[in-house]
Amino acid sequence: MRVALGQFNAVVGDMAGNARKMREIYARAVRADVDLLAFPELAVCGYPPEDLLHKRHFLTDCSLTLEKFAADCPDKTIVVGFAESDRGGNYNSAAVLQGARVSRTYRKALLPNYGVFDEQRYFRPGADPLVLEVGGLKVAVTICFDIWDIEWLGNFLKDAGRIQMILNISASPFHTGKLTRREDTINKCAKQFGCAVAYCNLVGGQDELIFDGRSMFADSTGSIVAKAKAFDEDLIIADVVGADDDTVQVKPHQPAAVQPASLLDEIYQALVLGTRDYTHKNGFRKVLLGLSGGIDSAVTAAIAAEALGAENVVGVTMPSKFNSPETISDAEKLAENLDIEFHTIPIAPVLGPFHEALQTVEGWNSDGLAFENLQARIRGCILMSLSNQFGTLVLTTGNKSETAVGYTTLYGDTAGGFAVIKDVPKTAVYALAEHINKMAGRPVIPVDVITRPPSAELRPDQKDSDSLPDYDLLDRILKGYVEEDKSVAQLTGQGLPKDVVDKVVRMVDRNEYKRRLSPPGIRITPKAFGKDRRLPITNQYSHSKDLA
Amino acid sequence: MRVALGQFNAVVGDMAGNARKMREIYARAVRADVDLLAFPELAVCGYPPEDLLHKRHFLTDCSLTLEKFAADCPDKTIVVGFAESDRGGNYNSAAVLQGARVSRTYRKALLPNYGVFDEQRYFRPGADPLVLEVGGLKVAVTICFDIWDIEWLGNFLKDAGRIQMILNISASPFHTGKLTRREDTINKCAKQFGCAVAYCNLVGGQDELIFDGRSMFADSTGSIVAKAKAFDEDLIIADVVGADDDTVQVKPHQPAAVQPASLLDEIYQALVLGTRDYTHKNGFRKVLLGLSGGIDSAVTAAIAAEALGAENVVGVTMPSKFNSPETISDAEKLAENLDIEFHTIPIAPVLGPFHEALQTVEGWNSDGLAFENLQARIRGCILMSLSNQFGTLVLTTGNKSETAVGYTTLYGDTAGGFAVIKDVPKTAVYALAEHINKMAGRPVIPVDVITRPPSAELRPDQKDSDSLPDYDLLDRILKGYVEEDKSVAQLTGQGLPKDVVDKVVRMVDRNEYKRRLSPPGIRITPKAFGKDRRLPITNQYSHSKDLA
Repeated sequence: MRVALGQFNAVVGDMAGNARKMREIYARAVRADVDLLAFPELAVCGYPPEDLLHKRHFLTDCSLTLEKFAADCPDKTIVVGFAESDRGGNYNSAAVLQGARVSRTYRKALLPNYGVFDEQRYFRPGADPLVLEVGGLKVAVTICFDIWDIEWLGNFLKDAGRIQMILNISASPFHTGKLTRREDTINKCAKQFGCAVAYCNLVGGQDELIFDGRSMFADSTGSIVAKAKAFDEDLIIADVVGADDDTVQVKPHQPAAVQPASLLDEIYQALVLGTRDYTHKNGFRKVLLGLSGGIDSAVTAAIAAEALGAENVVGVTMPSKFNSPETISDAEKLAENLDIEFHTIPIAPVLGPFHEALQTVEGWNSDGLAFENLQARIRGCILMSLSNQFGTLVLTTGNKSETAVGYTTLYGDTAGGFAVIKDVPKTAVYALAEHINKMAGRPVIPVDVITRPPSAELRPDQKDSDSLPDYDLLDRILKGYVEEDKSVAQLTGQGLPKDVVDKVVRMVDRNEYKRRLSPPGIRITPKAFGKDRRLPITNQYSHSKDLA
Repeated sequence: MRVALGQFNAVVGDMAGNARKMREIYARAVRADVDLLAFPELAVCGYPPEDLLHKRHFLTDCSLTLEKFAADCPDKTIVVGFAESDRGGNYNSAAVLQGARVSRTYRKALLPNYGVFDEQRYFRPGADPLVLEVGGLKVAVTICFDIWDIEWLGNFLKDAGRIQMILNISASPFHTGKLTRREDTINKCAKQFGCAVAYCNLVGGQDELIFDGRSMFADSTGSIVAKAKAFDEDLIIADVVGADDDTVQVKPHQPAAVQPASLLDEIYQALVLGTRDYTHKNGFRKVLLGLSGGIDSAVTAAIAAEALGAENVVGVTMPSKFNSPETISDAEKLAENLDIEFHTIPIAPVLGPFHEALQTVEGWNSDGLAFENLQARIRGCILMSLSNQFGTLVLTTGNKSETAVGYTTLYGDTAGGFAVIKDVPKTAVYALAEHINKMAGRPVIPVDVITRPPSAELRPDQKDSDSLPDYDLLDRILKGYVEEDKSVAQLTGQGLPKDVVDKVVRMVDRNEYKRRLSPPGIRITPKAFGKDRRLPITNQYSHSKDLA
């Protein structure tokens, strides 16, 4: 049996466009003479469609698109994900297309409702397995999470008889470390059933989520024998053959796709894809960002240039008297190195009159945080005005560490449309800068930008370290508190200093409102500040309070 | 059996504070010699705690608080909601406290996972009914949604024998029309089981949700014989008596609480409570808002003054040359009428230099939308600066109609912390203005503000009607499209004009990003732009696109 996995970049809601892409892939699969062609979970409508699924006409359009696609592609067995609606409710389903029509459907049985997933909000669970016979082999069709509970799956398929292959169509979002877990799951699955596994994953960016592709074939020993590209579309084909000794072998038709060189490279590629897809899928060609001369904006600009082409990135530096000559010149040098459009708009001519206007209210002064933040707000206002005038998307440049503790100005540096490195801890931002320079073979990001102590430059001689602990320590605390939901007691039990932990935890807790009012950004960790961490703003839970 | 319903304003996460309030209510119940005292769903930790439930220490603190509360209140049977954790998972539970300890628990069986609810994200369903014997009567304990599926409930309690009362502890969020549905549910429940129903609801504002209280007793004919206050704390007590003819009678101990005079009054009270609770529970005393002289800011200011006291509301008018003398003087008149602090900060001295700074970028001009929006952004920046300096919360003033179609400036008039009338359609804003004046017995909101055609005043002679359909028509389209998820075909089928429907639907769809970046606000309709409407920003679904 020859099997093709059509890993493509589906766009949520663009059913006509998704069907067009699938028809092109079908034509290639026909030329390769495959028996079975698979597309990802909810490929027809994109994943996750969220509350679009509450619109009856959306579900109708999904069915119509599927039927038309079936009619257009009559010559092969195709398994494709779609949102199914019948009188009993809606289902996350796989349609089997044969002879120009939908011959059967399989309904996803395990619906994830944790982390970034809300599938029980939308779908009912299916109850029945589906086993197809294709090219003389028996193929069990499953959808994403169905194979992640191996004990459940064993029970679910116990009456299915001898199966030669499990086909799993997925929309499995990326985070660092996910691939290992996925390969482990596929390996266990192959071994448990003594069968091959064909795993077809989605690729592309959808708001905060990145789908990383890397569709795979495993043989019946659990070895991964073929893997599609990461963070890009791909079509991989293999022959799945039942051997005389009852093992199932898999023979790939193409050379192995080049894979990311490291976990850091994986993060970089995720950020590039996420930036490109958010920009293009939302109808923008160009982006705009403030270049402070610091490392966050430098890394963001480099990612944007890679994602969109240097000609589509505009950098604006907005110096004040608190910016050192070095940072101003580093911003310019970066723009030169990246070969992007560059503007300098000093904020002093606006800051003065603004300060005077505010001075008419008694108590306003230029000594504190409000005056510091006014500078950031003027910069946000400049970027949003240029965005408004020229139709460019504003990228914000905050990293996960500062987003966590609220070391940002609401409606200042958080003003924009998309937050590229929002889920990247500061320590990883440094590593990304080195990675970018290494790949370029030259210091695209000026070395000074990497070595200079970080500063917001909103008052004389300010340093991040005046307000925050060392980033190494901060990131360790944040990983425990934010990503692992550990308590203060657990964190100090790990040897982290109590006073710093208390301070950081308080900062994280009281800045929920700022995060809620900041743009979406790309998720790269197991728990980002997005759909996977839903905390109330109004929340008086505190570790330091007496319970009495 | 004497039953007391302790309807109180629990704060999410403030377990010590919630326990303190419950101890006070317990003391009153002891004095009234009740047999059974009930508190709302998740009363110990507040509702909804969202992902706080993923913190193990939060669950531990919830148990400890419950045990301490039980020890402090040994003399009565108490039923109180808490988050229960055991090895098998977490449950939305009711604890029965007797003799200074937790004697039994009931686990909520039906977990809502639609609209604003995500309970399947956090809890496993219970499987067993709990019937208590109190004061010689049999009482079935249920939690919120458990009584909303009457067929399911009949089956669930079929082996429970003759029950004299169903106790339901709830955290049922308000929207217009909800009370009728709730009374209908309670009525059906009483009739089905021929028993009394005691319904104890939460009260208070929690982020976008309002819990409206109105706890109730129904007798076995389904008549509502006692109802607690709306939008306020209350303790209602009644004797529940099994009569010889097998009916169950309910005799209230207090006169009937005054109820909202109309649906409009209900909305007004919801907005007042929501504003007060968001402000105070987040640690603010004072609020700040821009007064344009228009109706939205006038209604918002009046609600804030009622919620927080006039002395805690600051109005700022920020006129430009496009503001008419009438609107400027109306803003001042409103501030005088409400007796709130008032400042005038003209924006021309800032707008000029801002424009000049932006002109250094070729293509920037003062003729279009970007220049119009710059004025709104300067105003947002002024308010945020004052907020930053004085620690006041900025209230934004956008209504649901303009929020829906994106007739707002991102990071301009949307800049702030809380959006009081975000879920109030413009037509209802007018009705609220009349209501406010009627209650005051004088035009607190100047009559001109109500009768003048609405305008953003960002360019000469601008009117809302230049860009938007009549608000009557707009609000009808929005109700169908946003709240009822109708398609263009369904809306035009109702006789709504196709060209206007197409335009409005496009505007709603393409402004999802603006809504996502705007502050939370009070939910008063069955579907607000918040947790109950979760649409992707990246979304190319369109009614006008050809499906081919």
